[in-house]
Amino acid sequence: MTDGPLASWKDGSAKRAIVNFVNTVTTPGDGFVEVADRIATFDNDGTLWVEQPLPPQFDFVFRRWAEEVKADPSLAEQQPYKAVIAMDPAFFGGIATQDPEVVGTLLKAFSRTWEGTTPDEFEAQVRDWLATVKQPKLDKLYIDLVYQPMLELLDYLRAHEFRVFICSGGGRDFMRVFAEGAFGVYKENVIGTAAEYHYTDGQIVRGEHALGTLDVGPGKPEHIFAQTGRLPLFAGGNADVDIEMLRAAKFALLVNHDDADREFAYTSGADASLAKAKELGWTVTSMKDDWTTVFIPGGTK
Amino acid sequence: MTDGPLASWKDGSAKRAIVNFVNTVTTPGDGFVEVADRIATFDNDGTLWVEQPLPPQFDFVFRRWAEEVKADPSLAEQQPYKAVIAMDPAFFGGIATQDPEVVGTLLKAFSRTWEGTTPDEFEAQVRDWLATVKQPKLDKLYIDLVYQPMLELLDYLRAHEFRVFICSGGGRDFMRVFAEGAFGVYKENVIGTAAEYHYTDGQIVRGEHALGTLDVGPGKPEHIFAQTGRLPLFAGGNADVDIEMLRAAKFALLVNHDDADREFAYTSGADASLAKAKELGWTVTSMKDDWTTVFIPGGTK
Repeated sequence: MTDGPLASWKDGSAKRAIVNFVNTVTTPGDGFVEVADRIATFDNDGTLWVEQPLPPQFDFVFRRWAEEVKADPSLAEQQPYKAVIAMDPAFFGGIATQDPEVVGTLLKAFSRTWEGTTPDEFEAQVRDWLATVKQPKLDKLYIDLVYQPMLELLDYLRAHEFRVFICSGGGRDFMRVFAEGAFGVYKENVIGTAAEYHYTDGQIVRGEHALGTLDVGPGKPEHIFAQTGRLPLFAGGNADVDIEMLRAAKFALLVNHDDADREFAYTSGADASLAKAKELGWTVTSMKDDWTTVFIPGGTK
Repeated sequence: MTDGPLASWKDGSAKRAIVNFVNTVTTPGDGFVEVADRIATFDNDGTLWVEQPLPPQFDFVFRRWAEEVKADPSLAEQQPYKAVIAMDPAFFGGIATQDPEVVGTLLKAFSRTWEGTTPDEFEAQVRDWLATVKQPKLDKLYIDLVYQPMLELLDYLRAHEFRVFICSGGGRDFMRVFAEGAFGVYKENVIGTAAEYHYTDGQIVRGEHALGTLDVGPGKPEHIFAQTGRLPLFAGGNADVDIEMLRAAKFALLVNHDDADREFAYTSGADASLAKAKELGWTVTSMKDDWTTVFIPGGTK
């Protein structure tokens, strides 16, 4: 499994397309790309780790909100608390389709919960969640549900002098807590939806508003350009919110969740991206057919 | 001059303080700092290159605005064009003190000039300026007026597994054009005042508004945290707008411009930071006494 690069990738068309592309851009001659321009960006949920039944950060957030409702039962009548308690499918559908009213309600609640917290306080909350909460079907900590083939891909790209970034609709500060340990990606290479922070009295403190757009759809290339000054040479994603990032890249890899036995089989939220992949010739990797292993053996160290 | 690390630094208290600090944080034992936390941030104008008679970006901007006035003489009656043509000292004083009205007028004019441009168009304008405009007193291209001792310091820190960032009140995209060639700092490690960009039709295009706060004063640690997820372990600056960044760092280096013969001697815009350095025990480096060479020999390659 750990023999050579991309050891958990079967010798199929996806692996061959990746290797061919990397060889082309790193070999002097036609198609060579300077080291400075070798930026790779990867979505997180469903691309680097499991995103079912919901992107893991929602579990973290909803537990926090459940505690708030316990402390103040009147919140149970307000959104988004009401929808969260009822697991209202219309509300959760609105998250997937980026319904502006649903997104606005969520952002307001995030602000209510975390405005005024320091990075250390927030990090402690995330670490506690990471160490205790298991994915219900797979009965493992989320941090142990990282995809081994994708970790090998990040290593392979870094070995060819790519700088690897994460670019997710999820919270930048949430991902920064575990990206170094789980993916070997420094905090500064984690791009995501972000809150404003203020610096007062020698302390960074979370503000009320978001910094920039939501990091989904066109927000992905916008955030990538803001953070790196470039658009990606290589990008990996798995969902419709990744389409613009994948289109902005020279090489696009789409992870297809078609492995009900080892993980999940679903195309919900990914139908448009699968169609785009066909139209534009993106590389699609089948978890079922291309990956000898799905999850990191032994979990994140 | 290129013998060993920090070869252009005389063996004085500034060099000794830098070397002692770096040895402490990189040697196992008391004061050791994990590699992940080794973030160094440097102001640009007056810290890494010359900032007299004005931060170089103003020269770039004012030339652009002069062309606009030529094309549309009615602009000459409006601010900031009027102040720029008259070189109005009250207006320029307002830049130094961050007068909100002056800053607002400038930001509106930036937006008017560059809204809708692509990164390639902007880069071509900056490259043209870099290749043609000389600093008036020193009669050299600005890009050749980079401080050799500071370049050696960046190298020294990188050799000790620091990740080096630039953090300047100047324009992020302006600095990103030359930071890789001049400082060996990748675009993604350049932090500055920034415009919003939008992604439409496969293209990144500059928007109307700023993204986040101005990158001066408290804006510096705010931008550093947003970009890196950390506050700096080591920071270097030279002016009052750097105070908050220097306070946020474990080690603070202040460049004192006291070399009228080889560069300039001035404390204007730096009086408060020089006082803070005394109060808080920051390391102050004297260009005159500590540096055997000021500018890179031969210029930026």
